[in-house]
Amino acid sequence: MTYRMWIPVRPAGPGTAPAERNVLERGARSCASSGPSTEDGASLDRTIGQMPPGAIPSPAMNPPISFGRFFLPGPTEVPPDLFDAMRRPVVGHRSAEVSGLIEAMQPSASRLFRTSRPVYLSTSSATGMMEAAITNLTRRRVLCLTNGSFSKRFHAIAEATGRPADALEAEWGEPNLPERLRDALAAAPGRYDLVTVVHSESSTGVLNPLEELAAVVHEFDDVLIAVDTVSSLAGAPVETDEWGLDFVLTGSQKAVALPPGLALAVASERALARAEEVEHRGFYFDILKFEKNLERWQTPNTPAVSLLFALDRQLNRMMEEGLEARWGRHDAMARRTYEWVDRTAARTGQPWRVLAPEGYRSPCVTVIMLPEGLTGPEVVSRALAHGYTVAAGYGALKQSSFRIGHMGEHTLDELEALLAVLDEVL
Amino acid sequence: MTYRMWIPVRPAGPGTAPAERNVLERGARSCASSGPSTEDGASLDRTIGQMPPGAIPSPAMNPPISFGRFFLPGPTEVPPDLFDAMRRPVVGHRSAEVSGLIEAMQPSASRLFRTSRPVYLSTSSATGMMEAAITNLTRRRVLCLTNGSFSKRFHAIAEATGRPADALEAEWGEPNLPERLRDALAAAPGRYDLVTVVHSESSTGVLNPLEELAAVVHEFDDVLIAVDTVSSLAGAPVETDEWGLDFVLTGSQKAVALPPGLALAVASERALARAEEVEHRGFYFDILKFEKNLERWQTPNTPAVSLLFALDRQLNRMMEEGLEARWGRHDAMARRTYEWVDRTAARTGQPWRVLAPEGYRSPCVTVIMLPEGLTGPEVVSRALAHGYTVAAGYGALKQSSFRIGHMGEHTLDELEALLAVLDEVL
Repeated sequence: MTYRMWIPVRPAGPGTAPAERNVLERGARSCASSGPSTEDGASLDRTIGQMPPGAIPSPAMNPPISFGRFFLPGPTEVPPDLFDAMRRPVVGHRSAEVSGLIEAMQPSASRLFRTSRPVYLSTSSATGMMEAAITNLTRRRVLCLTNGSFSKRFHAIAEATGRPADALEAEWGEPNLPERLRDALAAAPGRYDLVTVVHSESSTGVLNPLEELAAVVHEFDDVLIAVDTVSSLAGAPVETDEWGLDFVLTGSQKAVALPPGLALAVASERALARAEEVEHRGFYFDILKFEKNLERWQTPNTPAVSLLFALDRQLNRMMEEGLEARWGRHDAMARRTYEWVDRTAARTGQPWRVLAPEGYRSPCVTVIMLPEGLTGPEVVSRALAHGYTVAAGYGALKQSSFRIGHMGEHTLDELEALLAVLDEVL
Repeated sequence: MTYRMWIPVRPAGPGTAPAERNVLERGARSCASSGPSTEDGASLDRTIGQMPPGAIPSPAMNPPISFGRFFLPGPTEVPPDLFDAMRRPVVGHRSAEVSGLIEAMQPSASRLFRTSRPVYLSTSSATGMMEAAITNLTRRRVLCLTNGSFSKRFHAIAEATGRPADALEAEWGEPNLPERLRDALAAAPGRYDLVTVVHSESSTGVLNPLEELAAVVHEFDDVLIAVDTVSSLAGAPVETDEWGLDFVLTGSQKAVALPPGLALAVASERALARAEEVEHRGFYFDILKFEKNLERWQTPNTPAVSLLFALDRQLNRMMEEGLEARWGRHDAMARRTYEWVDRTAARTGQPWRVLAPEGYRSPCVTVIMLPEGLTGPEVVSRALAHGYTVAAGYGALKQSSFRIGHMGEHTLDELEALLAVLDEVL
């Protein structure tokens, strides 16, 4: 079993290279911290090393910290050097420094979304940008594709904001299929002008066939598609421009691996034209304000500048890794997880299985159905006793399943160490 | 001239005492950093000291950092130990750790607002909670008291969210007076069911007579009062319960002295009853969701947990100082600033003056009108050349004034050092 020790070696700042990684071989359990058993999260007593910016690292000054044992499907484990980046004096958000930072980040942020459009930086969770999709883009009625807890949220937002909405439901654990969407749109011509979809359902681990769903939407005039890529972007292919996605949003604390508090989003030209036609878009989440402010490299509302500092560094890291390599790493972790589930089922003769059907599995989150006699919270508790954090199932699946978030900065080696611990305790 | 050197000496964590302060006497200019002149903000090249949690501080390991030269009227200077508090692994926001943190903070947060009600923690800027006031509490029509840029925002939010609204305007630099409010409400019985007011107008430095305005609102049936205390709460007396304020909101980056990214708000029982009657309150800023989630010590949306860690520490600091002492410190800094303006006018024979009339001055922000030949940006530039940050005037007042934010963790000594530098360069 291996895990990495992180030592921050350079001061935080734009253009700074990501912290070096020292990969050390150690027995994971010998370093496992013990903490109180919790339902969903790690213990608070972990400590992390710090050092003066620019100083030469020495073992005495930098107690190395372990990374690679926190596998929630969000928030994900944050590389310590991102905390270093946040440890920087706050400056005025209308200052040249912050504008310069936002301008410098835009090319990488657009590459992350595979778009030529700019990327909005919203000081909110991703739910805020889901609300933006509904309030800015619904003129007549929105059709919400639902197949889990987070996709249903789009529908709840439409109701809370007074936008006419219907839900096209698939079973929990199943994908939303293109042919069903086509039937629904064709059955009521002109009824809908927006379709919402969650790409990777964190509650079930299902990955919706986004490219195909978008292609169906494009068969119909005047219908836009808004996509929640909260647990897919930066971990799974999302081709905003090529697939013709009109609004794509994500949060900072999933595959992007930042602390929570920021949401990122992209709007197509078609989306902006639609927003122009909508009279009451709201104020805080008005995408035309985001668009307008980016002309001066600003945000419409006071931004969480500490998180912008961290985002700058993390964008550099992601661009250095390369998006395709990053997707490949997530895909490899997902495949290794499926293999482990199959092997565990074979070894124990019990019905362990991945909830999502083959071909529709998120490379970032796997929901594993448990055999009788073993519950999600019990798995969480046993893993935590060995210093590892996984999540119980979500909502109605809490008892019958557990979830592994294999995304962000985790590696196959770290996942192997987790699976070895699970082998031992389950 | 004196300024403080901060050395963080203890690991971040709930219940940890604020970092000790070492007050050293030094010539401020000898340590002044030089940076590019900017319109509104400090240079990015300032560095800050870090050390391993729990380690014994030594000069070699902890290059002490200066504090006390950043006087924007928001964001304000953040004490370095709050960055230490943020430098902590992210945990699941539905975990017992985060719930425990939120529960532990509530008594102090309520004391800060002088209320028996709980305090909502919104991952947004304060503008988000302004939108909450409008969308949750307007059933018929809102009357927005305006006397500057931020109070006009309430009116803009009402328009953007489709809520009927009127503005009762006072001149920039003047307060909203209770008798005018009474006349407006009496002239149209039943027309309004919400009044909005900004307590401390950061654009003009005017402090509205909040207690008297609230008393007028209470003369009328079924009218609520929502208050933006963004640059007053934690620096000026705000008596939420005693004055009968129905919704009180603030941001993290003003007198509370945190980095931006969090908003705090309190709703009265009357406000909750009103929200129950409003059908489309929105989703992200639905105060009934905030209220409901606090029953389990949670937030409705994924919170910026790093900022919650910092808020916990800062609440401890504020409670240790004592609210009355904190208000007194802000009042003393404000009075010293007025005295300096008067003295400068007398010394130079030029018409330097505080924009806000006596009796209506914010203890947190002073807007200083400049004589002919001296502009706001020029003052900013000269101060910055000596390592000090102040702000140019806001909007139409940019050229004719400059602003000092004397709030948060600043002291009278630090203000004296700033004024001495201004004496030298102006």
